[in-house]
Amino acid sequence: MSSAKFVVIEGLEGAGKSSAVSLVKHAIEATGASLVSTREPGGTPMAEAIRECVKHNWRDEQVTVQTELLLMYAARSQLVHNVIKPALEQGKWVLADRHDMSSRAYQGGGRQIDEHLIEPLRDITLQGFSPDLTLYMDVEPAVGLARARGRGALDRIELEDISFFERTRERYLLLCQQDPNAVVINSMQPIEKVHQDIRQALQLFLDKHACIPG
Amino acid sequence: MSSAKFVVIEGLEGAGKSSAVSLVKHAIEATGASLVSTREPGGTPMAEAIRECVKHNWRDEQVTVQTELLLMYAARSQLVHNVIKPALEQGKWVLADRHDMSSRAYQGGGRQIDEHLIEPLRDITLQGFSPDLTLYMDVEPAVGLARARGRGALDRIELEDISFFERTRERYLLLCQQDPNAVVINSMQPIEKVHQDIRQALQLFLDKHACIPG
Repeated sequence: MSSAKFVVIEGLEGAGKSSAVSLVKHAIEATGASLVSTREPGGTPMAEAIRECVKHNWRDEQVTVQTELLLMYAARSQLVHNVIKPALEQGKWVLADRHDMSSRAYQGGGRQIDEHLIEPLRDITLQGFSPDLTLYMDVEPAVGLARARGRGALDRIELEDISFFERTRERYLLLCQQDPNAVVINSMQPIEKVHQDIRQALQLFLDKHACIPG
Repeated sequence: MSSAKFVVIEGLEGAGKSSAVSLVKHAIEATGASLVSTREPGGTPMAEAIRECVKHNWRDEQVTVQTELLLMYAARSQLVHNVIKPALEQGKWVLADRHDMSSRAYQGGGRQIDEHLIEPLRDITLQGFSPDLTLYMDVEPAVGLARARGRGALDRIELEDISFFERTRERYLLLCQQDPNAVVINSMQPIEKVHQDIRQALQLFLDKHACIPG
């Protein structure tokens, strides 16, 4: 049995995911483990083409909530099958910028698609595969969006109104409550405290699994 | 209530779908009805982009059967929502070159994805919406593929081996048995007889529904 683990960073726009990814990446690599980084939707040539489809502004053509959901799982199937599982089998850790919890929060919470309709897609695509650790970077939508807008152009999904992101955040928090492998990081604290909380959550995980020589 | 109907032409590569589409199109238009033609996957700007993804040869990247299935339903959701249903609501007939039966036959039969896994995708995407008439152009795979290969380059799916198409054909025939709105046309007969059978099936349908003044 390989001790390689699958770690996911989740959160709204402007929640500090990139900086969390970078911190976790360095902390894992510092233990001597090899690590593969991914982002969703995307991460393979085909999944990136699907990402383009789903992020594109199709102007006069309305993108149905069902299409958006199906495309997210199509891209995920490519990534899990071609990148994530092979890496883990080779003993490499995988660090993901978004994974399945994003679909459940954005399409389930934000777009209000019934969880019972999402469940079969998860079954088809993931067949029970799930992260060993999820760090959810929690931020109030108004705070996160102000940060994200400061960075430049927003894509089709990022242009939704605030209530969309409030529903998404609420679902994220609910999913974290239900997931024993998820940790909520309060991303509205001073940056040093945020980083300290991330390091601590990661260290607890590593100790618990004793998966890397300390 | 509009009397406009949704008519689908189905079949393997080289089954004579294009010629059937053309014949049915002229027969419906001859009654004075307006008609919108579609093809799947595709038929909207976004669905055509998804078609590119699914038909493309991704070389080193394996396309999972799940991805292919999810993309077919994503494209279908766009087409049904943005083209087919609006046309029917405006009293226009819709004539489709492939629809849901293709996914059930190719991905269900050919790719051997369990029908119980496809069912929820149909629920999410179609919500009970289904064709008023399906003409399935039946051909033995060896005959159809020889015709199709005579036409030029084949796409990723068309490059499957013969057993894939035999499973697909078998599933098509089974689905037609179960579908009271489906008619099997023996496409291996002389072309005049094939066209006569198509005209007859269409006339029976029109008479039964009395949807167009005769």
